[in-house]
Amino acid sequence: MRTVRAAVISEVERPIELREVPVPELERNSALIRVALREVCGTDVYLHQGRLEGVPYPLIPGHVSVGFLEEIRGSLKDVEGRPLSEGDPVTFLDVHRTCFQCWHCLVAKASTRCPDRKVYGITYGLDDGPSGGWAEAIYLKPKTRILRLEEQYQERFMAGGCGLPTAIHAVERAQIELNEFVLVLGSGPVGLSAVALSRMKGAGKIICIGAPNHRLKTALDAGADVILNIEEAGERERQQRVFEETLGRGADVTIEATGNPLAVVQAMRSTRDAGRVVVVGQYTDHGEISFNPHSDLNRKHLDVLGCWGSDFSHFHRAVGIMKDEKLCAPWESIPLTRFSLEQCNEALDSVATGPLVKALIDPAL
Amino acid sequence: MRTVRAAVISEVERPIELREVPVPELERNSALIRVALREVCGTDVYLHQGRLEGVPYPLIPGHVSVGFLEEIRGSLKDVEGRPLSEGDPVTFLDVHRTCFQCWHCLVAKASTRCPDRKVYGITYGLDDGPSGGWAEAIYLKPKTRILRLEEQYQERFMAGGCGLPTAIHAVERAQIELNEFVLVLGSGPVGLSAVALSRMKGAGKIICIGAPNHRLKTALDAGADVILNIEEAGERERQQRVFEETLGRGADVTIEATGNPLAVVQAMRSTRDAGRVVVVGQYTDHGEISFNPHSDLNRKHLDVLGCWGSDFSHFHRAVGIMKDEKLCAPWESIPLTRFSLEQCNEALDSVATGPLVKALIDPAL
Amino acid sequence: MRTVRAAVISEVERPIELREVPVPELERNSALIRVALREVCGTDVYLHQGRLEGVPYPLIPGHVSVGFLEEIRGSLKDVEGRPLSEGDPVTFLDVHRTCFQCWHCLVAKASTRCPDRKVYGITYGLDDGPSGGWAEAIYLKPKTRILRLEEQYQERFMAGGCGLPTAIHAVERAQIELNEFVLVLGSGPVGLSAVALSRMKGAGKIICIGAPNHRLKTALDAGADVILNIEEAGERERQQRVFEETLGRGADVTIEATGNPLAVVQAMRSTRDAGRVVVVGQYTDHGEISFNPHSDLNRKHLDVLGCWGSDFSHFHRAVGIMKDEKLCAPWESIPLTRFSLEQCNEALDSVATGPLVKALIDPAL
Amino acid sequence: MRTVRAAVISEVERPIELREVPVPELERNSALIRVALREVCGTDVYLHQGRLEGVPYPLIPGHVSVGFLEEIRGSLKDVEGRPLSEGDPVTFLDVHRTCFQCWHCLVAKASTRCPDRKVYGITYGLDDGPSGGWAEAIYLKPKTRILRLEEQYQERFMAGGCGLPTAIHAVERAQIELNEFVLVLGSGPVGLSAVALSRMKGAGKIICIGAPNHRLKTALDAGADVILNIEEAGERERQQRVFEETLGRGADVTIEATGNPLAVVQAMRSTRDAGRVVVVGQYTDHGEISFNPHSDLNRKHLDVLGCWGSDFSHFHRAVGIMKDEKLCAPWESIPLTRFSLEQCNEALDSVATGPLVKALIDPAL
Repeated sequence: MRTVRAAVISEVERPIELREVPVPELERNSALIRVALREVCGTDVYLHQGRLEGVPYPLIPGHVSVGFLEEIRGSLKDVEGRPLSEGDPVTFLDVHRTCFQCWHCLVAKASTRCPDRKVYGITYGLDDGPSGGWAEAIYLKPKTRILRLEEQYQERFMAGGCGLPTAIHAVERAQIELNEFVLVLGSGPVGLSAVALSRMKGAGKIICIGAPNHRLKTALDAGADVILNIEEAGERERQQRVFEETLGRGADVTIEATGNPLAVVQAMRSTRDAGRVVVVGQYTDHGEISFNPHSDLNRKHLDVLGCWGSDFSHFHRAVGIMKDEKLCAPWESIPLTRFSLEQCNEALDSVATGPLVKALIDPAL
Repeated sequence: MRTVRAAVISEVERPIELREVPVPELERNSALIRVALREVCGTDVYLHQGRLEGVPYPLIPGHVSVGFLEEIRGSLKDVEGRPLSEGDPVTFLDVHRTCFQCWHCLVAKASTRCPDRKVYGITYGLDDGPSGGWAEAIYLKPKTRILRLEEQYQERFMAGGCGLPTAIHAVERAQIELNEFVLVLGSGPVGLSAVALSRMKGAGKIICIGAPNHRLKTALDAGADVILNIEEAGERERQQRVFEETLGRGADVTIEATGNPLAVVQAMRSTRDAGRVVVVGQYTDHGEISFNPHSDLNRKHLDVLGCWGSDFSHFHRAVGIMKDEKLCAPWESIPLTRFSLEQCNEALDSVATGPLVKALIDPAL
Repeated sequence: MRTVRAAVISEVERPIELREVPVPELERNSALIRVALREVCGTDVYLHQGRLEGVPYPLIPGHVSVGFLEEIRGSLKDVEGRPLSEGDPVTFLDVHRTCFQCWHCLVAKASTRCPDRKVYGITYGLDDGPSGGWAEAIYLKPKTRILRLEEQYQERFMAGGCGLPTAIHAVERAQIELNEFVLVLGSGPVGLSAVALSRMKGAGKIICIGAPNHRLKTALDAGADVILNIEEAGERERQQRVFEETLGRGADVTIEATGNPLAVVQAMRSTRDAGRVVVVGQYTDHGEISFNPHSDLNRKHLDVLGCWGSDFSHFHRAVGIMKDEKLCAPWESIPLTRFSLEQCNEALDSVATGPLVKALIDPAL
Repeated sequence: MRTVRAAVISEVERPIELREVPVPELERNSALIRVALREVCGTDVYLHQGRLEGVPYPLIPGHVSVGFLEEIRGSLKDVEGRPLSEGDPVTFLDVHRTCFQCWHCLVAKASTRCPDRKVYGITYGLDDGPSGGWAEAIYLKPKTRILRLEEQYQERFMAGGCGLPTAIHAVERAQIELNEFVLVLGSGPVGLSAVALSRMKGAGKIICIGAPNHRLKTALDAGADVILNIEEAGERERQQRVFEETLGRGADVTIEATGNPLAVVQAMRSTRDAGRVVVVGQYTDHGEISFNPHSDLNRKHLDVLGCWGSDFSHFHRAVGIMKDEKLCAPWESIPLTRFSLEQCNEALDSVATGPLVKALIDPAL
């Protein structure tokens, strides 16, 4: 039986180990993809810390990835109906098995809340074969949604990484109007893409509040007009600054992408009356927070919109943006650092502690 | 100089006194309306308790009112351009001077957050003449939006009262789809109208949670399918019941109309993933409340929508509903109790302590 | 091999013949449903006239149907995840194989325009076994979306028939606000359901223009306030009447459900400035029509919305409405006429020429 | 009495004449603005040809203009509440007296269809004093909505001219999603701004079809990816080209800005199923056109949206865009030609016959 080398989280908080993982026999209309690049993202840190539910340890982390179709059994087409062939450069939607048979998929039309949803590198484990991106290859089950992504776009696409489709979803919910004031809380992968996308949707002034300084510098490159370091300005000072920058009204739209519950309340307080707040950064449970339903929500006539995951439409737009020379520029300025599979623990550490803007696993190193 | 008899809150928490209030000389295109009926509502209680900001005591409480045009100076038209004459039965939008000159009115299109907004019976005081409904007559300044409301509809309209346009606004934001599960928290005037309107918008099962029992009985009459008394079921039990009644998913839409901050969090927890919560009951400040931004908002992909006040469109629809024999039935079942101007302290007490469903001031008694 | 008796359109315009149609061996997770009732609808007439594209004659007409699960191979669940058993009373979504793999399904989120869509009784033919409702039984392929529908609701559900989910889709697009004026053009199955649903969504005055008089009488029963017979009033007179009934403005919302291209232009001209027109009646090609893009569309700031087919959400709401005693009343007043399978040509004639409001095929007769 | 020199259309089709027009005494809270620049636009041509309704000849044409506050009586504030002073550089919303008292303004919330609307340079005539932009000064009545626009932005703002707020309205209705295919029909002022704004809203490929070549060249500068000259390609060829450029689907969004009724039908036929068509170019009546309601609208599940005029929010965004160095670039590439007041007939000719992209009247020349 064939095997591929892969980085495996065997248990929470244990060092990641390299293993040879067997490749199952390919089902009809499935494929094996040779991984070219895979980012190391906050989700991988959470997986390692055991903060996510429904994770079948041991597993191979790594969801959004790019690579080449190494082997196809049966036939595969992309969403536009064009056939895919062995050797083709591709990426794929990490969310598999959104069922389109359940009430959430079909009546609520909220497929990101489908109870049957499975995600490569998160809720598929070793029993599903090499099913995460920190590996030489990934086994793509039938009905995985695959898009062609030429080699010259792959690195740029990984600079956006899994934060990009999530940010597209958030910005879609934010409904930014031309020339509006947009506040982005957080300068991680989702926050940086949210800055770039807000610019792309015609925002006027964009304010990004985050840390550390080199990430905020990247936010400027991605399109922010004003940056503010949370390590240098307290909560009250930050809020005051937002009001100063927005004619005393607060932001028209605030996108929260921090992981810190405090930021959700700060988002409400920094947004203008009748504005919109999109909460996309509370991916894991960091506890409760207090707010005032009268002054923070009801009297402000605010829209506070939770935003979970992303669906194929967001992924499709992400690929389209990266193939468009006029749209992709902001992600070209994101500094990338490559690690080999052997350096995966080091890569994870660097993301957990924050010194790098974007770390990638390159199995060919 | 002419005077009218009026009930005046001279200071917070002091008994309301009857006074003779001078009527100013009518400006061009203004009018004097003889009051037929005026409800006693929660806002009046808050005014008496001093819980609202920007109130110019002493003032005459009473905002939504019905009556007859006693005197017109110049000419008046309704919104459809039809002339109004002395003697006509009318009601009027209590919100005056939404400016339609400011950024909130014209760019944000959120006129209920116009900083220049003035409300009869709340932010107009005695300096503006008899400017609240607990009086024999009200002076309607130029550009007050007046609609004809025939005598046979006046009592029914007051059964909806100021809670009806507010509830119309809330239900508009809730975007109820046919056959959806709707949860209404609160059985006061806004909650009861929200029940009736949810039925009118094609909701499937409607659950109303409130107190006391006679108000819940009125909720049943207004269209609720399931009622639950908060004095008889604890928070956990109530939430469990909602899930039982909604196929284990939670309500598609929850409308919070309670005045209790706890209810806002309960609303989030009782609503299905990707559902909508409208928060309309937090009209005054009752303090902070804790919630979990991960599990209550972000992971649920929830829309939480603050809803402030109402505008002319909601008032116009309210009048239309009351003139339509097919639509008005739910409000005909609301029990009314009339008080004379002299009984205004008693009327206020009865609303503050809750024994009556709807108390009205009838200056002719 | 088992066979079932079925009515077959072998060729366009040829009399329908009864045949014994073989039942294929059931695939895993498929079923055979014994038909209890199936409506005769306009689509069946079009099928017989050869007006639809992509129809694989010979075929068994009949799409929306009700019956009982006679045989199940493997296991079946409804959309809420509850198991279905042999003997259960059910109905099913006639639209099968909306792929949820293509660009239209996944990016445009417009599954009714999925190129891979197949419909029982329309685009499935005899090669797919007994695949239409004018038969003793229908073979339901895997992934057919089946909902339980108790026997007491089956007749009422067929009174709505295939026009009901279509009308639900149209009314969803119409976004009717409380107390709005709604104009429904057409008094066939879609028009009558559109009248009932507009009432259910809180419309104020509902005007239905159609023919003949007994259908208009049913429109009154379903909730219309004003009816107008096209055989008694010319185009100009009808338009004038709509303006008289709507304070001179035109309808807020017009739903076109006629099959006549002229009605589309009449819809635009009878709708108020900044109103909405939903065009759902142009299911087949009846030729071109002239309009004035300046005065009928641009200057009116009109929304003209084409509405094609229906998806599972509409079907699910249709079933929910029929199971709800408070919502289903309008369809109880629709007069039904039952025909045996042997009388299918007669039934089709009666629908093509219009004397009956609703004709049903009852294979047990 | 003071007079100002102005160009007056005394009668339809008569040469425009220069006159000395008396300035009325300023009402309280009104102003006189010295005109710096005023564009010559298609509306002026229509005014001269007598194609618009409700025009009180004789009048001074010229609606969107820039200049300096020469004299203020009383006090003026901008929409953000900041005081305006004599000497300030400004522009103003040409639409005056949208009433915010009528049903269209307050209930339909469609102020561009307010029956009471008055527009400087179109529906105000000489009786209202110097009330159009082809003059040394304009008398701004009370409640005219004025915004500060510094001198360095004035020329750039006029490059957008009155087409820019109209195009902002059209693009707002189009709801462009990230990476969508946008087709703009027309390369006049509205079309060119629609191209630039589509790029600003994150469109993917933008196709502009128009004429002549130098305008299409400007479309490329403004952000179009593909241009097509209607003088070089017939209707069928143009449609085929759109399908080739959009993966065979048609445009996601089409914005019609041509003035030619044929283009409206071409827009429907060039747009994908379930796409959106915004019709903004049919400002005057150019006759009827035939379409097929089945294949062009209903089966396509299309949104066809008329778009009339613009309101203050669009004007406010237009000013904001021009003051933002990151957003204004596309309009800097539009070639401008200045004419003196004396050359106004020549300027009008040049716009009517099309050789120039943008003609301006500069009263100081």
